[in-house]
Amino acid sequence: MTAPNRNTLWARAIVDELARSGVTAACISPGSRSTPLTVAFDEHEAIRTFSHLDERSAAYFALGRARRTGEVTPLVCTSGTAAANYHPAVLEADQSRVPLLALTADRPPELRDSGANQTADQEKLYGDAVRWYKDLPEPEAEPRKLRSLRTTVARALAEAEGTDAGPVHLNCPFRKPLEPTEVPGDVPEDLEALAAEGREREGSAAPAGVGAGSSSPAFVERAQGAPELPDTEIRSLAEELGVERGLIVAGPADPTEVDPEAIVALAHATGFPILADPLSGLRFGGHTRVAPVLGGYDAYLDESVTADWPDPEAVFRIGASPTSKPLRKYLARTDAEQFVVDPAGKWREAEFTASDLVVADPSRLAEALARVVSGPDSADWRERWAAAERTHWETVDAHEGLFEGGLVVDAVDAAPEPTTLFVSNSMPVRDLDRFARPSADAVTALGNRGVSGIDGITSTALGAGSATTDHLTLVIGDLAYYHDMNGLLAVARCDVDATIVLLNNDGGGIFHMLPIESFEPPFTDQFKTPHGIDFEPTGDLYGLDYERVDSREGFVDAYSEAVASEGSTVVEVVTDAADSHAVRDRLREQVIEALADGSAD
Amino acid sequence: MTAPNRNTLWARAIVDELARSGVTAACISPGSRSTPLTVAFDEHEAIRTFSHLDERSAAYFALGRARRTGEVTPLVCTSGTAAANYHPAVLEADQSRVPLLALTADRPPELRDSGANQTADQEKLYGDAVRWYKDLPEPEAEPRKLRSLRTTVARALAEAEGTDAGPVHLNCPFRKPLEPTEVPGDVPEDLEALAAEGREREGSAAPAGVGAGSSSPAFVERAQGAPELPDTEIRSLAEELGVERGLIVAGPADPTEVDPEAIVALAHATGFPILADPLSGLRFGGHTRVAPVLGGYDAYLDESVTADWPDPEAVFRIGASPTSKPLRKYLARTDAEQFVVDPAGKWREAEFTASDLVVADPSRLAEALARVVSGPDSADWRERWAAAERTHWETVDAHEGLFEGGLVVDAVDAAPEPTTLFVSNSMPVRDLDRFARPSADAVTALGNRGVSGIDGITSTALGAGSATTDHLTLVIGDLAYYHDMNGLLAVARCDVDATIVLLNNDGGGIFHMLPIESFEPPFTDQFKTPHGIDFEPTGDLYGLDYERVDSREGFVDAYSEAVASEGSTVVEVVTDAADSHAVRDRLREQVIEALADGSAD
Repeated sequence: MTAPNRNTLWARAIVDELARSGVTAACISPGSRSTPLTVAFDEHEAIRTFSHLDERSAAYFALGRARRTGEVTPLVCTSGTAAANYHPAVLEADQSRVPLLALTADRPPELRDSGANQTADQEKLYGDAVRWYKDLPEPEAEPRKLRSLRTTVARALAEAEGTDAGPVHLNCPFRKPLEPTEVPGDVPEDLEALAAEGREREGSAAPAGVGAGSSSPAFVERAQGAPELPDTEIRSLAEELGVERGLIVAGPADPTEVDPEAIVALAHATGFPILADPLSGLRFGGHTRVAPVLGGYDAYLDESVTADWPDPEAVFRIGASPTSKPLRKYLARTDAEQFVVDPAGKWREAEFTASDLVVADPSRLAEALARVVSGPDSADWRERWAAAERTHWETVDAHEGLFEGGLVVDAVDAAPEPTTLFVSNSMPVRDLDRFARPSADAVTALGNRGVSGIDGITSTALGAGSATTDHLTLVIGDLAYYHDMNGLLAVARCDVDATIVLLNNDGGGIFHMLPIESFEPPFTDQFKTPHGIDFEPTGDLYGLDYERVDSREGFVDAYSEAVASEGSTVVEVVTDAADSHAVRDRLREQVIEALADGSAD
Repeated sequence: MTAPNRNTLWARAIVDELARSGVTAACISPGSRSTPLTVAFDEHEAIRTFSHLDERSAAYFALGRARRTGEVTPLVCTSGTAAANYHPAVLEADQSRVPLLALTADRPPELRDSGANQTADQEKLYGDAVRWYKDLPEPEAEPRKLRSLRTTVARALAEAEGTDAGPVHLNCPFRKPLEPTEVPGDVPEDLEALAAEGREREGSAAPAGVGAGSSSPAFVERAQGAPELPDTEIRSLAEELGVERGLIVAGPADPTEVDPEAIVALAHATGFPILADPLSGLRFGGHTRVAPVLGGYDAYLDESVTADWPDPEAVFRIGASPTSKPLRKYLARTDAEQFVVDPAGKWREAEFTASDLVVADPSRLAEALARVVSGPDSADWRERWAAAERTHWETVDAHEGLFEGGLVVDAVDAAPEPTTLFVSNSMPVRDLDRFARPSADAVTALGNRGVSGIDGITSTALGAGSATTDHLTLVIGDLAYYHDMNGLLAVARCDVDATIVLLNNDGGGIFHMLPIESFEPPFTDQFKTPHGIDFEPTGDLYGLDYERVDSREGFVDAYSEAVASEGSTVVEVVTDAADSHAVRDRLREQVIEALADGSAD
């Protein structure tokens, strides 16, 4: 079908190339200047479109989808402030290496900085937070420009999904007519098919993961390598890991980063326990049946407990910096050789005590090391950690009262399998870290720990949910729930079912953990910020069932019912932030005391 | 009172200098890293603090307040995505010259790009959209650094409130302890008072408008000049305006830009009618009793009407580019000498037909010109415009049916005096432009026409309302209402009363005015985007009275009751976008036909 004008041709080439490269969905917000892109996405059969009215939520939804799948979900918006609304999600994508592709429509060059309506300076709008920025040329029905365009799309995907995955920004100027209106002579009939319609390669199968969204191959096919160490380096590293006492520390994972088998193999070969952040991809799953995966460190790694522990000699660190501050502090006070393994060669360890930066794919490296590492095995070392874990989980299990951490655990325990579990900042992720026991359950735990904002949480969760047939549970505090209330529209609009556990402590619970708690004023008005919002009307507003409960038993019942029923439900539990924090402290003290007693034996 | 530590000292110096410079309010969002600033603002008696949970809404609220007053309302947020949430409002402030001061807390330098939690690259976060960016040095209790800090604050205000007013960004690193915890020895007791506590000038009165918020003078006092033309240029310009046929075209005004007396004086001296954008500051007010202020141009400036009109010889343009596209197109097809008067020397005329860029304060220039301009007076020219106006208003008045434009007019007519009237993009401002007759009513009409986004509208309106004792009316469509629903929290939290007129046509009404309307799909799903939201629960959610009406009479009653009652009310009218657009078209055609008939006589 010949394009009616150059804008249609241009936008179709972009979307076609995305589809051929495996893109299966896009998030689109209504707008005029972006009309060519919107029309092209809408008419492409291989790409599902999600329509979002709030661009901030749109970007977080795309982020969530990309976080869950590792694949780009393009974003389309009109010119002006719309594009700036993507900025928070772009920052999160940057720090947590989630591929994102922002396609922002813009005025043609002569209308920029001219007083033209709805025109802002969109050049490099996201600064250094994007992996690549390009101001596309103006659409033209010219073979070389179209080949350049398709190549640009391929490059954008390669940058977004590369080893240092992240956001990419293509700014797209369009001149009227923006609609698919026939403009005679605008698109030559004899336009070279290669450019306009992409490549046909007979008999060529697209590489795995590429071109999945379309039967035709991409104009530029991509194959993505990952850094691997030379054998000599692997042997030398294996030697350094061949020690009695070591640890594998897995922080929040980049999307699709970690192969549990590989890490478990390394754990077995070295005898090192795995300290698995809840977002590491290693806290939950079948591999926990056969590997020493630990999850209680956030409670027991206190100075009083570890003072008479021998130091680890080597620590193999993968993923981002762990959520647990006690863990980070513990690592900082040991004199272990610490290997920060990062495929992108970035430094993600803010105590600056790591001694080695290893630029390599963590799973491949773990696999390679597992084959060659050998060393003295210390049952004593492993038992020390196992004992701490036992004490921790016994203590946690023994506490039956209502507190926020317990509700997070109850949700994990009662979640059907498989579940995608999204945990909000700032407290739910910390509660999951401390209170969710490693288990073989099919739980994919996700959070926004790149920049750890409380914005866009609901949208990110729903975006993740849109990408799977998993059950989706979101655990969220009231401030985060309020912040992205607009995101709830996606439940109906984007057809995503979710069970939303709303832990409502009427304000910023985390501030009870900070010294500012003892300064009143301004503690209550400026930090705790109680808002008194009754969130029940959000059920009516967004077509959600809404249940409010006030006990753990009531919660488990309501949650179980919610996951079993059709549609989406908010299960609200009103909690007391100060009380919950007191329980956290008390349980931690119990664990620490028990362990201190034990070591005194 | 000696500061307990260097952070407290530092933040107090910032806030004290702001207060001494006339700042009277600040918008603060809860966060940990920003604790020193938050505490300092909270404890300063001369500065009112507005606590906002959503930073995007906070920034728009500050924008609204600054738009209404012309004075900076500082913003305080924590590190990370919070700061990126300011970006949309920063773009609007840039384009519409609203002073804004973003104080974003940040990690100290060594923790940036290190994997530290909640850390993004905040350097030059808003790119070229800010007038000035500075990464503050780390707090230190050292006289020269404190003098530098106070000077920086003065410079930030001077940049923000200068001739080319706009946003300024100060990035503020803090190192723990963030709370006002005593750190012995951190702040020397003999610290030079000048730096730590600011200047005391005996008997010195602060210049007008400066230091109003505090009895003490600022460390650096400011006096702001405005560009004035030399006499020779004024005489030469007066000569060019000394013609039979001319126009004064007033686009949306920068905050506090226009002195109606001065523009009226020029209108009288030249005999030129004033085409007053609804946001120009000239459409409403006592001066309309004595000056030829026109408001119907958006309907009657059709090519078929103006084809046999003589061209204007000179057009004196002030403010931003007019909202009315027919007006812009009319100006582009005349061969008038067009003088774009802009105090900042920027070009705000995207048809590129203006012939002169005059860098001068518009009001002062108009005043000066009024004294010296003289020329042939054309009663015929004035009568031509007056006749067109009469035809337009008669036609509009004769239409009594329900349509969006009529409701906007009804709200203006029934508004108590004085009223601050905030009109949303995209349709309400256009309806106000076309259907609100110039009147002597004390109405201050405002909108976000810098980038014309539909985001942050409610917050901007409430921010404007927070700055005056005027009655506040917001006219808003459903997409904009949805987009900034979070902004409604400010009604209760920031104690702003408002009457919110919600014109609910279930989606993007403006797209009915665009060619995409005839392409289905994707028109409905991707452009019109009906959402079906029943907004009534937002009344419960945010403590607003909620009325729904379905006729103009019902609307006027409900609106009148709402403005007369305590508290805030949403008056929702369900409208049909296509119908309303048909009425707009029909009325315009009637006007054009009547005028074409008249000219054929």
